[in-house]
Amino acid sequence: MAPPAFSEDDRHFMRVALSLSKRGLGNVWPNPSVGCVLVSADGVIVGRGHTKPGGRPHAERVALDMAGDLARGATAYVTLEPCSHFGKSPPCAAGLIEAGVTRVVSALTDPDDRVSGRGHAMLRDAGIFVDVGLFCDQARKINEGFLSRVERKRPFVTLKLAATMDARSATRSGESQWITGDAAREHGHLLRANHDAILVGAKTVIADDPTLTCRLPGRAHQSPVRVILDRWGEVPETGKLIRTASEVATWVVTSGAKFAELSEKFEKTSVKVIEAGCDGDHLDLHDVMQKLGDAGLTRVLVESGGALAAGLINAHCVDRIVHFVAPALLGDDGKAMIAELGVERLVDMPRFTRTSVCVLGEDIAVTYDYKTG
Amino acid sequence: MAPPAFSEDDRHFMRVALSLSKRGLGNVWPNPSVGCVLVSADGVIVGRGHTKPGGRPHAERVALDMAGDLARGATAYVTLEPCSHFGKSPPCAAGLIEAGVTRVVSALTDPDDRVSGRGHAMLRDAGIFVDVGLFCDQARKINEGFLSRVERKRPFVTLKLAATMDARSATRSGESQWITGDAAREHGHLLRANHDAILVGAKTVIADDPTLTCRLPGRAHQSPVRVILDRWGEVPETGKLIRTASEVATWVVTSGAKFAELSEKFEKTSVKVIEAGCDGDHLDLHDVMQKLGDAGLTRVLVESGGALAAGLINAHCVDRIVHFVAPALLGDDGKAMIAELGVERLVDMPRFTRTSVCVLGEDIAVTYDYKTG
Ligand SMILES: NC(=O)c1ccc[n+]([C@@H]2O[C@H](COP(=O)([O-])OP(=O)(O)OC[C@H]3O[C@@H](n4cnc5c(N)ncnc54)[C@H](OP(=O)(O)O)[C@@H]3O)[C@@H](O)[C@H]2O)c1
Ligand SMILES: NC(=O)c1ccc[n+]([C@@H]2O[C@H](COP(=O)([O-])OP(=O)(O)OC[C@H]3O[C@@H](n4cnc5c(N)ncnc54)[C@H](OP(=O)(O)O)[C@@H]3O)[C@@H](O)[C@H]2O)c1
Repeated sequence: MAPPAFSEDDRHFMRVALSLSKRGLGNVWPNPSVGCVLVSADGVIVGRGHTKPGGRPHAERVALDMAGDLARGATAYVTLEPCSHFGKSPPCAAGLIEAGVTRVVSALTDPDDRVSGRGHAMLRDAGIFVDVGLFCDQARKINEGFLSRVERKRPFVTLKLAATMDARSATRSGESQWITGDAAREHGHLLRANHDAILVGAKTVIADDPTLTCRLPGRAHQSPVRVILDRWGEVPETGKLIRTASEVATWVVTSGAKFAELSEKFEKTSVKVIEAGCDGDHLDLHDVMQKLGDAGLTRVLVESGGALAAGLINAHCVDRIVHFVAPALLGDDGKAMIAELGVERLVDMPRFTRTSVCVLGEDIAVTYDYKTG
Repeated sequence: MAPPAFSEDDRHFMRVALSLSKRGLGNVWPNPSVGCVLVSADGVIVGRGHTKPGGRPHAERVALDMAGDLARGATAYVTLEPCSHFGKSPPCAAGLIEAGVTRVVSALTDPDDRVSGRGHAMLRDAGIFVDVGLFCDQARKINEGFLSRVERKRPFVTLKLAATMDARSATRSGESQWITGDAAREHGHLLRANHDAILVGAKTVIADDPTLTCRLPGRAHQSPVRVILDRWGEVPETGKLIRTASEVATWVVTSGAKFAELSEKFEKTSVKVIEAGCDGDHLDLHDVMQKLGDAGLTRVLVESGGALAAGLINAHCVDRIVHFVAPALLGDDGKAMIAELGVERLVDMPRFTRTSVCVLGEDIAVTYDYKTG
């Protein structure tokens, strides 16, 4: 079958849908973040929607409700295949059929076993023209978290690094506030807002007693889950994360040896305790990620210290690095941004692909994706 | 006096002159690298020139020779005040007068005591209209090496750093070829071409036996002087730098204790031995820079290892950093790009101002200027 020919209008409206779809990132897990645009036969947008916080209603439902009767005869642009299974609400494919939509342009087939082609098939069976694959790379990228969880059974992991140009995150005496400037820190909060969870280790919690919330004006409600790796159950109950667990979700991942003890300790709090396996001296980071995927997370932002960062890199658990670089130097006696990796030969060094460079006041942020193969 | 009003034409022709002036960088020390454009009354460029290798002929002379009789009635755009003193050749101010130029637009007054305003004055005394200060910041920047030597009695120093994003220049076992890619290395050779000298320490020479020449096609003749800091006279005569000293200038800077010995050792070679003072355990880097200025150098590119780089930074001898970043990681057990700096507090950390970010294939190059005050 020849691939469908998409018009300039198709491209334009799909771009709008893709842009809408980004709005749900960080808020809709374990669901994908979808965008939908309904366009009447005379080329007017009559409905727009994106997945709402918590994952419901879906983008199509929002757009159909907005369009009302105007959806009849319209074309729907969706960034992911409409769902076909009866869950908490009737499937979106049924909604589109019922509303009288005559064509659906879809960016991507949903890899979720419960959908995977069935949504598109349901639409076609109802006589709707369905064209699939417009801007599918962009759609995949926006939902890389959702797709990672479905396809790899673990969240997409972004490591945030902030350091001087010689990659030091603190002076030798431990002073680290602040190396990067306001613009970079604000960008860091934006990253928090569009991630499902922030991951740190117990040492960081003990040393810094951080809040790990999104403090952008108007986006505090988008604070992600705070996940603490705490193999030994060392995180103090008196720290900010545990004390505010009823306001902002806080999870502790620990080993089998400590699981019962911590579960009891946190029984009367909102803290969720998760058990993960161990690998030698540490929690098995693969298993940790698997468990976080099981718990529904699709996008995890790591804001750890250098030891955990190194562990995650060596475990191939880092998919992306966002590297904030301040125009300053601290020298080899400063605290290393990444701990030892044990790389003997250059051919073995972890390599990435730069995807963007962004100027943030005096600092820059460089984004790298892990280079596979 | 009201500042002169420059026309769009003035700006255009001065931009051409500035662009010409860059061509001499690295080849004209201890002279400034100047550009000159002669424009006839009807707006046609009748002569162009830039300072020639070795510093002679001057830009004005080149342009006047090209223009011949057409220089009569022309306007001269010069990026630095024309010289006024009778040296190896008659002064350029006299040349412009003799050729019948009627107006001179000059970017900058020459800070050299032998000129400093006298060139402009000589032209004015001859009835030529002289307007000074067009694009003076740009002109200062191009000749920052020459100006540094005149004003600070030392060359302008650029430190080249090439490392992974976590600032490692070799694996823990010492493998370093290659961390950055072809485009970055080519850019490195371009830097060599427009610097008067490359500075390294004895340890690098012993460990790597480098060539330190400019290997860009057609620019090999622009290889800078190779300067080796060798307090203890350890650099082997069998190394490439010493062996090729008759082809590419090679200087060794050593302490008073070793000066006589090295002078004798290198008597029959082209190697030049320079004496500098000591400061505790090391050569006094201020004095080294002063001596390199005395020897005529205006632009020095440092391609040292991490220890000398740290020493130069702490001695406030680094005016610019060109930081090549490869999209890879080596970890804290890799070789640090900058050795210990002994910074205890963040307020004391050396700070820079980013002036450019440049994409070079998979790598990036970020340029920083030292932030004074
Ligand atoms: N300036 C900044 O941007 C910044 C940001 C965050 C943190 N920090 C600093 O970083 C320091 C802490 O760094 P850190 O990385 O040690 O702290 P961390 O982020 O708290 O991570 C340490 C935790 O990770 C676990 N871990 C370490 N390596 C592992 C591996 N290979 N596999 C599995 N688990 C591993 C450790 O578990 P085990 O108990 O099993 O060893 C430990 O609980 C603190 O001083 C903090 O202030 C700085
Ligand atoms: N991958 C790369 O891009 C790259 C480039 C260059 C070098 N390297 C590597 O870097 C390593 C050498 O590094 P390095 O910096 O020690 O070598 P270097 O560039 O050879 O500099 C060492 C020299 O600088 C002097 N020095 C050091 N600190 C000083 C200070 N504070 N004040 C004055 N002088 C000082 C030392 O003199 P004293 O005798 O007084 O101590 C020594 O002779 C080698 O392994 C080399 O392969 C790598």
